Amino acid sequence: MAHHALWSGRFKEPLSDIALKFSSSIDLDKQLYREDIAGSIAHVEMLSATHILNASEARRIRTALNQIQKEIETGKFKLTAEHEDVHLAIEQRLIQKVGPMGGKMHTGRSRNDQIALDERLYLRTAVKEISKLLVNLQRVLVYKAEKYFGVLMPGYTHLQRAQPVMLSHHILAYTWMLERDYERLQDGMKRLNKLPLGAAALAGTSFPIDRAKVAKKLHFDGIVENSLDAVSDRDYLIELASTCSILMMHLSRMAEELVLWSTKEFGFVHISDAYTTGSSIMPQKKNPDMAELVRAKTGR
Amino acid sequence: MAHHALWSGRFKEPLSDIALKFSSSIDLDKQLYREDIAGSIAHVEMLSATHILNASEARRIRTALNQIQKEIETGKFKLTAEHEDVHLAIEQRLIQKVGPMGGKMHTGRSRNDQIALDERLYLRTAVKEISKLLVNLQRVLVYKAEKYFGVLMPGYTHLQRAQPVMLSHHILAYTWMLERDYERLQDGMKRLNKLPLGAAALAGTSFPIDRAKVAKKLHFDGIVENSLDAVSDRDYLIELASTCSILMMHLSRMAEELVLWSTKEFGFVHISDAYTTGSSIMPQKKNPDMAELVRAKTGR
Amino acid sequence: MAHHALWSGRFKEPLSDIALKFSSSIDLDKQLYREDIAGSIAHVEMLSATHILNASEARRIRTALNQIQKEIETGKFKLTAEHEDVHLAIEQRLIQKVGPMGGKMHTGRSRNDQIALDERLYLRTAVKEISKLLVNLQRVLVYKAEKYFGVLMPGYTHLQRAQPVMLSHHILAYTWMLERDYERLQDGMKRLNKLPLGAAALAGTSFPIDRAKVAKKLHFDGIVENSLDAVSDRDYLIELASTCSILMMHLSRMAEELVLWSTKEFGFVHISDAYTTGSSIMPQKKNPDMAELVRAKTGR
Amino acid sequence: MAHHALWSGRFKEPLSDIALKFSSSIDLDKQLYREDIAGSIAHVEMLSATHILNASEARRIRTALNQIQKEIETGKFKLTAEHEDVHLAIEQRLIQKVGPMGGKMHTGRSRNDQIALDERLYLRTAVKEISKLLVNLQRVLVYKAEKYFGVLMPGYTHLQRAQPVMLSHHILAYTWMLERDYERLQDGMKRLNKLPLGAAALAGTSFPIDRAKVAKKLHFDGIVENSLDAVSDRDYLIELASTCSILMMHLSRMAEELVLWSTKEFGFVHISDAYTTGSSIMPQKKNPDMAELVRAKTGR
Repeated sequence: MAHHALWSGRFKEPLSDIALKFSSSIDLDKQLYREDIAGSIAHVEMLSATHILNASEARRIRTALNQIQKEIETGKFKLTAEHEDVHLAIEQRLIQKVGPMGGKMHTGRSRNDQIALDERLYLRTAVKEISKLLVNLQRVLVYKAEKYFGVLMPGYTHLQRAQPVMLSHHILAYTWMLERDYERLQDGMKRLNKLPLGAAALAGTSFPIDRAKVAKKLHFDGIVENSLDAVSDRDYLIELASTCSILMMHLSRMAEELVLWSTKEFGFVHISDAYTTGSSIMPQKKNPDMAELVRAKTGR
Repeated sequence: MAHHALWSGRFKEPLSDIALKFSSSIDLDKQLYREDIAGSIAHVEMLSATHILNASEARRIRTALNQIQKEIETGKFKLTAEHEDVHLAIEQRLIQKVGPMGGKMHTGRSRNDQIALDERLYLRTAVKEISKLLVNLQRVLVYKAEKYFGVLMPGYTHLQRAQPVMLSHHILAYTWMLERDYERLQDGMKRLNKLPLGAAALAGTSFPIDRAKVAKKLHFDGIVENSLDAVSDRDYLIELASTCSILMMHLSRMAEELVLWSTKEFGFVHISDAYTTGSSIMPQKKNPDMAELVRAKTGR
Repeated sequence: MAHHALWSGRFKEPLSDIALKFSSSIDLDKQLYREDIAGSIAHVEMLSATHILNASEARRIRTALNQIQKEIETGKFKLTAEHEDVHLAIEQRLIQKVGPMGGKMHTGRSRNDQIALDERLYLRTAVKEISKLLVNLQRVLVYKAEKYFGVLMPGYTHLQRAQPVMLSHHILAYTWMLERDYERLQDGMKRLNKLPLGAAALAGTSFPIDRAKVAKKLHFDGIVENSLDAVSDRDYLIELASTCSILMMHLSRMAEELVLWSTKEFGFVHISDAYTTGSSIMPQKKNPDMAELVRAKTGR
Repeated sequence: MAHHALWSGRFKEPLSDIALKFSSSIDLDKQLYREDIAGSIAHVEMLSATHILNASEARRIRTALNQIQKEIETGKFKLTAEHEDVHLAIEQRLIQKVGPMGGKMHTGRSRNDQIALDERLYLRTAVKEISKLLVNLQRVLVYKAEKYFGVLMPGYTHLQRAQPVMLSHHILAYTWMLERDYERLQDGMKRLNKLPLGAAALAGTSFPIDRAKVAKKLHFDGIVENSLDAVSDRDYLIELASTCSILMMHLSRMAEELVLWSTKEFGFVHISDAYTTGSSIMPQKKNPDMAELVRAKTGR
């Protein structure tokens, strides 16, 4: 089967099947469909406001994009490997629905700034979600610190008993660590929450687009000023990965402690049956699997 | 919904749903189903030969396991997250088919040595496959070296032209690198290709099993002698990951060179349309995507 | 030779020589001597202000510490492997100078919070220094962007010529990246610039110390509230390492570009003789070594 | 001060001082002086045997190189940052001693194949040394396994007591892990122990050198056949680094266990005073520092 990609104009041979399969990124980027559609809608509304598209075209595209989102969510439209990526999959479906006019959605835009936008929208949601869960965990820890107020335990250095400490003091140490994790997430958000759209392939576009309007529609704090910077740097992503791995280090430390404390030898905690697993051949066992898994997932 | 896991005897509370979902590994280990079934069949045949199971039981289990493999391959039996892992999924399906007697398959075995076996079988197949592809690539390189024999090109150090070299000499440098990659794979195979089964949870089993028989059936070169070592060390896996990342470093270097050589400025190679992609807004472009992707995948 | 460490009270055997050598950290931590002395002086002044030490003791210790700093800087006192670490080396020298009273310097303090303090002081200086150099580099880039204003060059994607861009635009992209690096350093500073001293070994101290006073003397923005957190978490250090490696990624990219641009094939830049090296057997060569080294050091 | 490097012929400006300092590698490569001298002596003897140098020249160079080695070892000749690298430092000293004729030592050779040779010689010594220490450690473990034969202990999975095992069985598990580490080192040696000299900068040399003779003198198993491969690939080094990090993982695991077993709660082992440290403010403590340091150094 010959694939006729949107960029294939001057090419004499179609992309070989194996090359298409190798270069397709849809298995990964299909989880960006919501962001891709939200970004396209904001872009098209701006194109309409700046009279690059007319109002009726914009309306038809927006309606069709909303339908496509429903089709994806209900499984009616499947994002499979025959599409090169999520952007092309949605654009091709749009053209099926509204005709060649659908191609105008991509006016003044490139897949380069589009994927940068999708990633930022996706990570922004993730950062908000993680921040919320962090605060919840802090609340649970404060609750436990209050509940066990007055309980003494050995404080350890080198895993040797050193000086007595209050269990609450020990628990609250984690809330401070998580507080810094929370701050790091918000600090990263300042750099993450800028609009890259408008950079096009790398050099911007000659269409009279309005980047500030798109930024406002998508609740960004501003725009990425330099177009080459916008499409070629992913430092915000590395920063976020680092922040998350520090957070996971803290969770892993807490989990490691639960594993140790729930040994027969230490015996400081009792983990509920609902969060441990057993063994068919060793019925006395009660394994702190959840804690171990938290620790194990840190490496990812 | 309450889950009654095989190990749940003494537990008063069922595993919470969120804990089950968190601890389920089936999304990853379901790709081991072939190895899991092959291992179980060899184990059951040994149990029969040593009269731990009787011949008719062993036969019924083997037949059912073969059916289950077909059911998985035809999509009739789905390995989904409601099973804790691939081993339990297959065991539960077996019991559905042959009744409680199916549980005897697990005699003298634990999930600890079973997963170690599955991993080794899986990696052994992978090493053989990669080795074959490596030799193919060496053949292609030798073919190209012969084809372009006599062609001179600049040799570079610091990306500055240094001394003229023959293109064939340059190409053959890669065959030597790949030769060492091949050797490293075979060296690792010596450590990989040992049977861990028989270690049970960690301390072996009191059943009179015959590990050498299972090793022979599954074409292992020997057994892992120490049971604690067998279930607790994955050094062969790290070794293989390292070997593969060195191999990928070599492929990445080759790919990096193709990207550079196919620039307008160097212009040393012309990559066929079938292995490049273009751009809708820049029709003159021809992007060496496949080479770039080889390079990018090196990081994984 | 038997070593009599300060902690050796109840021990029957001295630390074996090989163990001492293995556990000595002085080769690394000797570079913290300035911070260690500054921290001790601030601590002693606080001990005097809170009447834990009397004024004359504090004065004698402070004077001796200032002398020790000069002795280290002039090579008169050498920090060698016979000392376990920099803290003990300085304390032992102090006791040589002022007699057993010198031991009072360590009142209400442990090596655990002391090393945490030294590290934070050291990193704070480093962050300030790096920030200054970053701003300088931005200035140079802006100067170059102004100087070459109007010069066009090919913009690349996939290392294929894509669209023309202005060289100044290309250069300014880096100033934006460095701006985010600068912001990340300042964000990390908020978490770094807190006083850990007062946590002692892990559980604080029963002496009536005044942590706020020490924080003020050493120009910290506040104190680390939880003592266990203060001595056991180094997240600020990992954050800074991550920030620096993102910064190095940006410098490496710039350097990679200079290497490529100074090839005969690209020929976009000419690096001065003062910053390139040659080859005795290939006199035509001019190697962009400095750029290559920037790139290579990124891995550290 | 203007530096006149050996390669500086056509350059109008000397290398700037800061660039020289930045590009000098002597702080690191000075530890290769023995290998550099041994390699040069073997090279010069071959140059004499092939009549590229005459016998008297070769003899004078060899004698002077032996003297230089003594000068370095007695501190008479210092390898400091004013030399670009260890190779140039030694060559310049040679010329001081025997006059311009000393430059002939470098005939048919480049710093590119010279450094590759030095690295391989250095690593070969390291691999032999580590192998010897590994075997010693295995002997100690076997001795301990014999000594404690019959002692039972809990076997753990998930740090929960699972089944009783013999302490000897537990100890012997490590000898098997170390055995594979030993094998991996020897496997890597096959790839490491090949002579790269003769590749010159990258394209070989037109002098009628005899690589097999040099290989024999330096006890290599053969030569690296392809000159580009010889100077541009360091896969043997990455392989060795990986092998060592697997080995360190095993030692770290053993050390982690000693830390855990020497807690008050487990109390399985008693580490001698000669290998633990204490605390001045907590005199009851006995810290398993050596074990902790083994674990910590694993990350390097």
